[in-house]
Amino acid sequence: MNKQDKTKVREILDAVKSAGRQSLTAPEGKQVCDAYGIAVPQEGLAKSSKEASNLASTMGFPVVMKIVSPDILHKTEAGGVIVGVKNAGEAADAYETIIANAKTYNPDANVVGVQVQQMLKGGQEVIIGAVTDGSFGKLVAFGLGGVLVEVLKDITFRMAPASKEDAYSMLDGIQAAEMLKGVRGSEPVDREALANLIVRVSELVSDFPEISELDLNPVFATKDGAIAADVRIVVDFEQKAPRYRPAEDQVLASMQRIMQPKSIAVIGASSEDGKIGNSVMKNLINGGYKGNIYPINPKADNILGYKAYKSVKDVSDDIDTAVFAVPAKLVAPALIECGEKRIAGAVLIPSGFAESGEPEMQEELVKIGREYKIRLMGPNIYGFYYTPANLCATFCTAYDVKGSTALSSQSGGIGMAIIGFSRSAKMGVSAIVGLGNKSDIDEDDLLIFFEQDDNTKVIAQHCEDLKDGRAYAEVARRVSKKKPVIVLKAGRTSAGAKAASSHTGALAGNDKIYEDVFKQCGVIRARSLRELLEFARGVPVLPTPKGENVVIITGAGGSGVLLSDSCVDNKLSLMAMPEDLDAAFRKFIPPFGAAGNPVDITGGEPPSTYKNTVLLGLQDDRIHSLILGYWHTIITPPMVFAKIIVEARDEMRAKGIEKPIVASLAGDVQVEEAAQYLYEHGIPAYAYSTELPVQVLGAKYQWARGAGLI
Amino acid sequence: MNKQDKTKVREILDAVKSAGRQSLTAPEGKQVCDAYGIAVPQEGLAKSSKEASNLASTMGFPVVMKIVSPDILHKTEAGGVIVGVKNAGEAADAYETIIANAKTYNPDANVVGVQVQQMLKGGQEVIIGAVTDGSFGKLVAFGLGGVLVEVLKDITFRMAPASKEDAYSMLDGIQAAEMLKGVRGSEPVDREALANLIVRVSELVSDFPEISELDLNPVFATKDGAIAADVRIVVDFEQKAPRYRPAEDQVLASMQRIMQPKSIAVIGASSEDGKIGNSVMKNLINGGYKGNIYPINPKADNILGYKAYKSVKDVSDDIDTAVFAVPAKLVAPALIECGEKRIAGAVLIPSGFAESGEPEMQEELVKIGREYKIRLMGPNIYGFYYTPANLCATFCTAYDVKGSTALSSQSGGIGMAIIGFSRSAKMGVSAIVGLGNKSDIDEDDLLIFFEQDDNTKVIAQHCEDLKDGRAYAEVARRVSKKKPVIVLKAGRTSAGAKAASSHTGALAGNDKIYEDVFKQCGVIRARSLRELLEFARGVPVLPTPKGENVVIITGAGGSGVLLSDSCVDNKLSLMAMPEDLDAAFRKFIPPFGAAGNPVDITGGEPPSTYKNTVLLGLQDDRIHSLILGYWHTIITPPMVFAKIIVEARDEMRAKGIEKPIVASLAGDVQVEEAAQYLYEHGIPAYAYSTELPVQVLGAKYQWARGAGLI
Repeated sequence: MNKQDKTKVREILDAVKSAGRQSLTAPEGKQVCDAYGIAVPQEGLAKSSKEASNLASTMGFPVVMKIVSPDILHKTEAGGVIVGVKNAGEAADAYETIIANAKTYNPDANVVGVQVQQMLKGGQEVIIGAVTDGSFGKLVAFGLGGVLVEVLKDITFRMAPASKEDAYSMLDGIQAAEMLKGVRGSEPVDREALANLIVRVSELVSDFPEISELDLNPVFATKDGAIAADVRIVVDFEQKAPRYRPAEDQVLASMQRIMQPKSIAVIGASSEDGKIGNSVMKNLINGGYKGNIYPINPKADNILGYKAYKSVKDVSDDIDTAVFAVPAKLVAPALIECGEKRIAGAVLIPSGFAESGEPEMQEELVKIGREYKIRLMGPNIYGFYYTPANLCATFCTAYDVKGSTALSSQSGGIGMAIIGFSRSAKMGVSAIVGLGNKSDIDEDDLLIFFEQDDNTKVIAQHCEDLKDGRAYAEVARRVSKKKPVIVLKAGRTSAGAKAASSHTGALAGNDKIYEDVFKQCGVIRARSLRELLEFARGVPVLPTPKGENVVIITGAGGSGVLLSDSCVDNKLSLMAMPEDLDAAFRKFIPPFGAAGNPVDITGGEPPSTYKNTVLLGLQDDRIHSLILGYWHTIITPPMVFAKIIVEARDEMRAKGIEKPIVASLAGDVQVEEAAQYLYEHGIPAYAYSTELPVQVLGAKYQWARGAGLI
Repeated sequence: MNKQDKTKVREILDAVKSAGRQSLTAPEGKQVCDAYGIAVPQEGLAKSSKEASNLASTMGFPVVMKIVSPDILHKTEAGGVIVGVKNAGEAADAYETIIANAKTYNPDANVVGVQVQQMLKGGQEVIIGAVTDGSFGKLVAFGLGGVLVEVLKDITFRMAPASKEDAYSMLDGIQAAEMLKGVRGSEPVDREALANLIVRVSELVSDFPEISELDLNPVFATKDGAIAADVRIVVDFEQKAPRYRPAEDQVLASMQRIMQPKSIAVIGASSEDGKIGNSVMKNLINGGYKGNIYPINPKADNILGYKAYKSVKDVSDDIDTAVFAVPAKLVAPALIECGEKRIAGAVLIPSGFAESGEPEMQEELVKIGREYKIRLMGPNIYGFYYTPANLCATFCTAYDVKGSTALSSQSGGIGMAIIGFSRSAKMGVSAIVGLGNKSDIDEDDLLIFFEQDDNTKVIAQHCEDLKDGRAYAEVARRVSKKKPVIVLKAGRTSAGAKAASSHTGALAGNDKIYEDVFKQCGVIRARSLRELLEFARGVPVLPTPKGENVVIITGAGGSGVLLSDSCVDNKLSLMAMPEDLDAAFRKFIPPFGAAGNPVDITGGEPPSTYKNTVLLGLQDDRIHSLILGYWHTIITPPMVFAKIIVEARDEMRAKGIEKPIVASLAGDVQVEEAAQYLYEHGIPAYAYSTELPVQVLGAKYQWARGAGLI
């Protein structure tokens, strides 16, 4: 492609701005396209019927003719478009008709002339466009043309600028992707030409933020290329103030001090049972936090055995984190003192701010935070846990099962559910963080911290909105290459989005945009709260698979069928069983066991059959993951099965072989204990479910693919 | 419409049969359409170029012309179709061209002439067709025309004959349904004309089973009607033997004796621990079965205190049910004795039949069963439980929690999962039945029994195939009007279907057909094993809603958003909150609580706020169901919340007010006990999940709508 001619585009946009217009004329649009190597049809501007017929004759018939007027945006409505003009005479007539129609439609319209354009046909009509989203900024869009596609909403988005790889993933990312590959004898389109077009559009809108909307509609895609038949460009010259965002190294430095503080102050610490300032103190002390604790309370000398101070400024030691447990109206003055003391972060438990109809009070805190460079967590939160430091900076009950999952929630209720589920499932966590009103610290700040935190292997987040989707996506794209990032985005549906709006005042996000941007960034999207929790629990437990070949080994044929269904639902590939491997499995199973994959060892087999087949599955290099279906029998009771599987895994691990294994247990209640045993030994296992183990494995695969590991 | 002219169709089909053809010519197709009031374009047969131009001139241009030859099915391929013929001269030329092409394509073809047909355009192109499915028989299909629809597989099926209501539901049942309603200024199509066309096609193929396939493609649907531009009819005159199926009253009489036996024989009863015949005896005795038990064993006089017999024929009493616990090869002779003894049913626990590569052995049993009119359950099953009779006719562990859900499974493993889950969740059941190889008794026999069984309120079934989908659907359609029928159809996906095939030798069903027929019959489809189990547990607990208005009352705003998402996912309508009702709720909640629906009572509220808002929700007639979101706080602990909700429900119940209530509990592990308490008191409640309670409510709504109750 030609080098982009930015100067040319700048000239055109400047002219549009000077003229006070909000959109470009078709000829201007064409010039912009030309400057960015976006192919458009031959065309020219006619100012008389004679010019029209001459122009048309030079480019060849048929042509399409369109009114050119800055005052007429909806040309078809105005009777300003005539298609299929077949000869010079028709072209002259069409010119007169279009001009007359335009005058009727809007007598005051400034009519520049009539555009005569080479008429494209054949191939597949597609749409390439760009929009500006409040949270994610510039997005490029791709879909097929036509009304049906509009009805089906079969369109896909990526953040701009999009890479060539992003562009190809868009071509494959629509439901009707097959249409581009040639169906019913039609030829496949030139994918590279389409991908280039997408990339160029995405670069154009990124280079010129004043382009707020762009439509190439239709684009004719054929086997030889892709040409945009029509371009519509809308501009907005109003400068938006960029969102405040500290540099990443500053974010990290603050977050490290906040999450791993050497000393912590409790503003509003109390000796009185039932007070939040009392619960926080107790959790810090009983949780086993080893740093210094400074209770701040102007009316006390000593709280729970710790010397109390009137103000953080009276403490001689440095303080990293201040946990607030005072009424809303007392927060601002105390926060100023924290700022003066150069405390890194304030954990703002109190409510009574934006969520209670007091946005100004919250704005005041934000201003203080900026001024003193003190980061704010909350307000309106339960606080946070960071288990590697035995730190429970919260009024909720303590939690101490250490592990490698870091969780966060926008909502306090969901945070409580995280704690309850974790305790019930004995899920090890590195951190649980409440973000509440997100006046300052949000999901991307947490990602930046957890990215470099060796205690964290997986990050799972619940959110209702992303205040700065662009910032989040940029960080997530990088972090997800190293550690799985799992997100439950609430307010997915219009009803849900409405509730989100009334809850936090957040703008309802367009869910399809979230969906596609998450995909672009390698973020695993959880579809439900339970899924978020199960993924958070299971994904870090599983080793990373080395390839796509999944094999099911099952004692219950019925489980095998359901597990296979789940594999398809979760985009897992059931390996086509090679003959030699099939024969090798058959040696261990009864003659009527089913061939292929699932390997149906049949019910009533002894423990050795489970063990031998699992060992074979682990040993053979062609197999990358195992899904086990256990059937409760007297011959192989649940705990015997569980122990034998762990043994088999350990034997192979000793030889340096590690593969993901998940298990579904069908049987009486004893299978629950067996599933728990398996889980605690690194094998995600579920009783009475053929879908959950496969979903967890599917999440691991989704991450590994996104991170380029398989 | 005109009365159907069956005689005419019979004549045509007879002629086709005599000619040994497998398809109808276009003129024959048109005559069949005419006979059934299926609108087709004006047309005629030309045998010369002159006739062609005359004919075309009388019907008006443009016309389409097509070769008529029984030997040329793919007319376009043969160059036998010319569209857009514009005048008399073109028509004459087209005639010659088509004849010449046909001769080139197949010199031996018997060419009847050229069909001249009025050319339709405008409106929406749709496809109406019919196919013959191995399990469901005749099905009528509907979709939009065009390649894109093929790619998206956007087509819907119903069993033929389809009612007018079925037909309308098909128009609404495609993804692109909006296209029929008029988009982008196009006019809506004549829905009644389309529905009539669907009904007529469905009647035609039902009246004439030899029509194996029929395609009206395309049908042009406009605002004024619907005309089939092309018809293709394929016939198959080979008579299929109808599947053996006893009359319903016979089925019921047998099933009543089998499921509620006055006396039961155990073939192969044993005193030896660990034998299946010993487990069955113990389960019968310890389960508390009150009828007579007759152990059959030629080598024993007494088994576990019961007199043993050499044969069932030695028992003087009548016997209803015989449970088999002998090796496969001993089943047939014992079954003959059972037949001679006029036993109603044999519960065939033994394996070693079709599932083990011995289909002939199974066929032998089927033959004996037919001859002696003894119904067979299995073989290759765990047996069955019928709790109202304290009957555990199984070798598995006993289960005695009585309730109103009847479950069945095709697979033994899934049956064990049902038992384990039931015990763990304390789910009350009326029956659990294993169907295994389904040599005889299958899902529809069970439906017929459970339909009239007052102990059963909900029927939940796992199946991998339906041997006779048509029979099942007919019964299910009736039963589902009275009691919810929930089905987990395994082998949904192609990978799953493959496993189903290797497991039971069942033909892989086309999943879309299952999906649509279930919809047609009011069957609730579970998407996963856990969903089947949760629906089985929750649906009978809930009262039937009286309308669509659902209100969410939540202490956690975050739960409210997720619950709203789930409502949309599960097709529940969040009620638009009327102003007066909004004001009434606001009286109970803090000023910053969110307006509308969800009602966000905010965290930190006392029990009275939960109770007052729930009472209001139950009292107001405009609200039909409540979804509660609880947030664990010290002020309203989990069990306090649970008890207060049950109290509120009981107070209203005493006044004759009953509405479905479900609850989602977010909090620490104590919420698990509270959820269990709520569930046991008739309020399906889940800890750490915002989706499960809504799914259960959604299933209840789906049933109530299908049964015409709301």
